[in-house]
Amino acid sequence: MSFKIEKKIKNSLGRAGLLETAHGVIRTPAFSPVGTKATVKSLTPEAVQSLGSKVVLANTYHLYLQPGSDLIKKAGGLHNFMNWHGPIITDSGGFQVFSLGVAYGKDLSKVVKITDPSLMIPERFDDDNAPRLAKIGQDGVSFKSHLDGSVHYITPEKSVEIQHDLGADIIFAFDECTSPSEDLKYQEEALERTHSWAKRSLEEHLKRRNTEQKFPLLFGIVQGGRDERLRKKSAEFIGGLDFDGFGIGGSFAKEDMSSAVKWVNEVLPEEKPRHLLGIGEPEDILEGIENGVDLFDCVAPTRNARNGTLYTKKGKINITNTGYREKFSPIEEDCLCYTCRHYSSAYVCHLFKSKEMLAGTLATIHNLYFIINLVAGAREAILADNFFEFKEGFLAKWGK
Amino acid sequence: MSFKIEKKIKNSLGRAGLLETAHGVIRTPAFSPVGTKATVKSLTPEAVQSLGSKVVLANTYHLYLQPGSDLIKKAGGLHNFMNWHGPIITDSGGFQVFSLGVAYGKDLSKVVKITDPSLMIPERFDDDNAPRLAKIGQDGVSFKSHLDGSVHYITPEKSVEIQHDLGADIIFAFDECTSPSEDLKYQEEALERTHSWAKRSLEEHLKRRNTEQKFPLLFGIVQGGRDERLRKKSAEFIGGLDFDGFGIGGSFAKEDMSSAVKWVNEVLPEEKPRHLLGIGEPEDILEGIENGVDLFDCVAPTRNARNGTLYTKKGKINITNTGYREKFSPIEEDCLCYTCRHYSSAYVCHLFKSKEMLAGTLATIHNLYFIINLVAGAREAILADNFFEFKEGFLAKWGK
Repeated sequence: MSFKIEKKIKNSLGRAGLLETAHGVIRTPAFSPVGTKATVKSLTPEAVQSLGSKVVLANTYHLYLQPGSDLIKKAGGLHNFMNWHGPIITDSGGFQVFSLGVAYGKDLSKVVKITDPSLMIPERFDDDNAPRLAKIGQDGVSFKSHLDGSVHYITPEKSVEIQHDLGADIIFAFDECTSPSEDLKYQEEALERTHSWAKRSLEEHLKRRNTEQKFPLLFGIVQGGRDERLRKKSAEFIGGLDFDGFGIGGSFAKEDMSSAVKWVNEVLPEEKPRHLLGIGEPEDILEGIENGVDLFDCVAPTRNARNGTLYTKKGKINITNTGYREKFSPIEEDCLCYTCRHYSSAYVCHLFKSKEMLAGTLATIHNLYFIINLVAGAREAILADNFFEFKEGFLAKWGK
Repeated sequence: MSFKIEKKIKNSLGRAGLLETAHGVIRTPAFSPVGTKATVKSLTPEAVQSLGSKVVLANTYHLYLQPGSDLIKKAGGLHNFMNWHGPIITDSGGFQVFSLGVAYGKDLSKVVKITDPSLMIPERFDDDNAPRLAKIGQDGVSFKSHLDGSVHYITPEKSVEIQHDLGADIIFAFDECTSPSEDLKYQEEALERTHSWAKRSLEEHLKRRNTEQKFPLLFGIVQGGRDERLRKKSAEFIGGLDFDGFGIGGSFAKEDMSSAVKWVNEVLPEEKPRHLLGIGEPEDILEGIENGVDLFDCVAPTRNARNGTLYTKKGKINITNTGYREKFSPIEEDCLCYTCRHYSSAYVCHLFKSKEMLAGTLATIHNLYFIINLVAGAREAILADNFFEFKEGFLAKWGK
């Protein structure tokens, strides 16, 4: 087994573990920074590593379109291409196809116009101004590239092929991410598709076992919206397949961390790792950990950073506010990140006001350090049997 | 003396030396990266240092306007503010006042409309789309901020005060940088002003000797356009004052490296260091070194980098060209910079095409490494008595 549970949180689903991949061990729970286009925006891989990050997540959809998974395969895979030699996760592309792709073709069964703002989960997007339209058939999804209008058709087999070409350590089955505004009938249809695509993804993946040296772990994705019956049904179906781990996909509100996430993790086989896709607010992460999540990824810390929104133990601040102009102490006094050890709030404020590139870099370092170390702290707390004190201690200050 | 000549190039004005400053020794000749707004765009100070750079140059005009020299003084000076603990050079602000300031007021003697493209030396600008208009009186220069339209009046005394507030190690006397298109009569008037301002800058500087712990070196600036008589006159006048070193200012064409620069350095006292302001093309640097220049600064390597124009031993290339899309070897095979050691041309090309921030960072690292090490190589060659072979060897490949 590639996953080993070291310790459980008493009276909850939470746990600390070790997840072995072809490029190293991830100590869980862990937060994975997002490097959408094979780069964590504004940072060198060495800078990402020095924050304590063991793993990064890249987006299949983006890399498939630019520079192309064939090119990355020729470059020797993502690790070589982007100079990141630790574990890499790629998503299936499903979420982006639905959220960024442009509809194309008339012979497909359903046009999903994703206009519901609740599905435009800002944490899941690292691109602005992208159209949100795609066409879905039983066999796969057709879409137009948001970059050049070129037409693409992604099937579960194709998604797995692309991800094998990219060469990540953890890859995902192709799924349909539905809008919570869709009616129950459509949710059920979509879930059937996701389940059928999960089986096809797994078959395509296993075909390759003998041909590839470094074989990735394949995670199946549980969907089902916010409906308890569908979520449990999906967890049972996906949990029953021979995946190495599981992704929990969909559009989530804060309250879903302790409902939908819990429903799913009560059903999923305990001995396999679980990745809650696209969730990254501190309070949501802690709730997710308590409810049995092992891996997180989210663009929020990095995207917030580039907008000047910085995390502190008391909540988020905007470093461009006038009050920081002459604050010569660090963003957070007791923070040990590179930015806080070497620069004042006034300097970071100046860089943002001056539109300097280093602004994004220093802010990203601070926010990623904050989140990565929050999750690492939760892990230590689980191992030391005091997770709930850790969580309450954090939440007592956060946002106050 | 703060400057020591170690070795001279036979039959030329060139030399290698050691320049001692309050924050360390600069081995000359040396190239100083430009950190206009207290940051070398896209790099951390540690990254700048790891390129072999011992010194950075910041722009007084920009910092005076944003965040303000008073704020930087309160922050403990530029070194502390920007986390650069080696030597820092600031210019006098004169060049930017004339080139970026907006004209204001009616009671001044002369409106200089800098519309001659030859004065809009691209190497001297790190800001785009800036208006180029200022008004000059005998006492100083009036201008409107290009940022917020606020009105400012800079005198030689004010320029020195600002630079002492910033706390650099090498500072410059306030000067008027004229357009080569001005007639000789105006050039002479402007030169008289520059000389009078040089004396006033020096007086203001020396007043502060007893009050400041880390006392900077003050360099006087030689002007005189492209006129031999005026250049020599200026070198004699400025060279006769008690400056710690000299700047050679003005607008230069390629051929001026071996004419105007030579005229000046034949006159300037040999035992003091000379900084050729704003020059940074490889061939110009080598010509400048041969003609007795010790220090260079220029935005060209960093600005070119951000546009995807990269230096190689054979000349400049544009990394976004189609030919680099699938070039899996480094930008330059035998280059030892961080970028070439870890990334392919294809990856850097991908980052530029994807508009990723890391594109600018990796390109800046490569270009600065190239220029800093070209100058360091020239220094080694001088010490080893083979400067001309070094120069010819470089030029035989460059641009071919």
